[in-house]
Amino acid sequence: MIIDSHAHVVLPPESYRYMAELVSSRTNPSGAATLPEASVRAAAEGLLKVMDSVGTDVQFLSPRPYMQMHGLKPARLTQLWTRHCNDLIHRQVQMFPDRLRGVAGLPQHGRTSPENTLAELERCVKELGFIGCLLNPDPTEGDGEPPPGLGDRFWDPLYAKMVELDTPALIHSASSCQPRESYTLKFINEESIAIISLLDSDVFERFPSLKLIVPHGGGAIPYHMGRFRAWTVRKGGMYFDDKLKQLHFDTCTYDKDALELLFKVVGPERVLFATEKPGTGSAKDPATGRDFDDLKPVLEELLSPKDQKAVFEDNIVALYKTRLAGWKPAKAR
Amino acid sequence: MIIDSHAHVVLPPESYRYMAELVSSRTNPSGAATLPEASVRAAAEGLLKVMDSVGTDVQFLSPRPYMQMHGLKPARLTQLWTRHCNDLIHRQVQMFPDRLRGVAGLPQHGRTSPENTLAELERCVKELGFIGCLLNPDPTEGDGEPPPGLGDRFWDPLYAKMVELDTPALIHSASSCQPRESYTLKFINEESIAIISLLDSDVFERFPSLKLIVPHGGGAIPYHMGRFRAWTVRKGGMYFDDKLKQLHFDTCTYDKDALELLFKVVGPERVLFATEKPGTGSAKDPATGRDFDDLKPVLEELLSPKDQKAVFEDNIVALYKTRLAGWKPAKAR
Repeated sequence: MIIDSHAHVVLPPESYRYMAELVSSRTNPSGAATLPEASVRAAAEGLLKVMDSVGTDVQFLSPRPYMQMHGLKPARLTQLWTRHCNDLIHRQVQMFPDRLRGVAGLPQHGRTSPENTLAELERCVKELGFIGCLLNPDPTEGDGEPPPGLGDRFWDPLYAKMVELDTPALIHSASSCQPRESYTLKFINEESIAIISLLDSDVFERFPSLKLIVPHGGGAIPYHMGRFRAWTVRKGGMYFDDKLKQLHFDTCTYDKDALELLFKVVGPERVLFATEKPGTGSAKDPATGRDFDDLKPVLEELLSPKDQKAVFEDNIVALYKTRLAGWKPAKAR
Repeated sequence: MIIDSHAHVVLPPESYRYMAELVSSRTNPSGAATLPEASVRAAAEGLLKVMDSVGTDVQFLSPRPYMQMHGLKPARLTQLWTRHCNDLIHRQVQMFPDRLRGVAGLPQHGRTSPENTLAELERCVKELGFIGCLLNPDPTEGDGEPPPGLGDRFWDPLYAKMVELDTPALIHSASSCQPRESYTLKFINEESIAIISLLDSDVFERFPSLKLIVPHGGGAIPYHMGRFRAWTVRKGGMYFDDKLKQLHFDTCTYDKDALELLFKVVGPERVLFATEKPGTGSAKDPATGRDFDDLKPVLEELLSPKDQKAVFEDNIVALYKTRLAGWKPAKAR
């Protein structure tokens, strides 16, 4: 089974209209979203076509990160929009339960404590059957002082809830208010900041079963091992390579050489298959004639059959085990 | 000849005292630095010993980046400290002209236009014989709104002066005011931001002879080629790999696998030897028994003799040609 553990919902036209109204009115009045069944289904069917075109059996669907609007005021805007996206994902998952699983967006807002996200996480996991959530290290979206790093106790309420529900989080920032740093680049930089903050803390001693995935090959860090190895040698304690293996990573970077380095640094056992397709890498690579985010053939070239099975399926099923319990898609029956 | 194109001055004890007084008094009164000849010489001789221990013939010396204090108020503090560091470097270069060349710090300050740096750059190059300068993309040091990206016309006054003097700049940020992002990580993130801002602009059309070096293997970018290749395919125009070759890079990253990827992505002809030793990588690698920043043996393993000569010497001499004119160190005589 080929599971793409990192993909984002495709919005029907009515969702854009709802978003536009929420933002322009600043939710006052807020109106209500109405998503006709046919629109929800058409968006999901479009996605399934993309999945079929590259041989993906299942996608884990979360809100489109750059559209999370975590930094926009008032907080109610983020809450309404997050709920809208999660509900949309739920409807698509219900339509195609063999092909899609839900990963929740959280209504994180600026420097507000993540306590404000617990109710929505609980609703998504317990009522809607979602299996994971996104976690944005900078919900200010680069507008002013960011919250403390992910290693800080600021995040403990969310980590405690994630552990209670045994729900993994995919670390993924949203947009960027700084003209010099596009959201696509901020993703990478925030992942580097997240990794170092986490590994410079005692988070994994306090929450040994916390499950965090750093997407996009782990930001810059696997390319800068020497810098951080030297840091841990000077500091004493766990070596950087071992610290790094407390995290999980995904393949959502679109270059064979980079993936080769990632596997060498963290080992195939820490890596989940992910393409985020359709997304950033959906453009034709002139060297191969395939889209950059058509990563299955790339991984088939790089990995042994055993490691392929781990990356395409087993690592993912193991990490999301509790939340996938009882789920048997057609492919697995 | 082995030229380490990226190294930072080692301060004598009197410099720390001067810094402490400048900062605590906020330059009012400012006092004056007095650096005894013996202290300046002892610091330089210590550095030479480090260079000898790893077979480095020449180092290009600039101020220690994290100690640049570009974000501290008042601006006069940065000016006095920058001048102090540049004068110290000049004295060490005069003592050991065969082994050291000067790279100027600039008194960049917060969001102030870089016009305020031109006089010091001119003084260093024309009066002190310096061959290059540092360029910090975020002189606010992460405290509030950063200035526009390096692709913005905000930086044109400095670029025009650099081109006039044919002086390369090494892109290097200073400290970080954000507890979640250490200066060592901010270096990497700022390099990624700098590269994308430059390559998303028309800077190299407006200043075709502008010489910019991105140190530390080019931040995250050579590890994220797929992401930015897809971006240029969608956008049209120059392919990302070709855009990237408008810049120069250095080897100041402390891992063989990362260096291998760097050479594959940009080619040995765009890469300058650099170790920043003593610095971040000065700790013993348990795998080799050598310091992480002892990179000469690593490059000798990775590169053909021809490419070694390019990286250790020829690329550097070619890039700094105008400013090295007339300089014949012992090794080259």
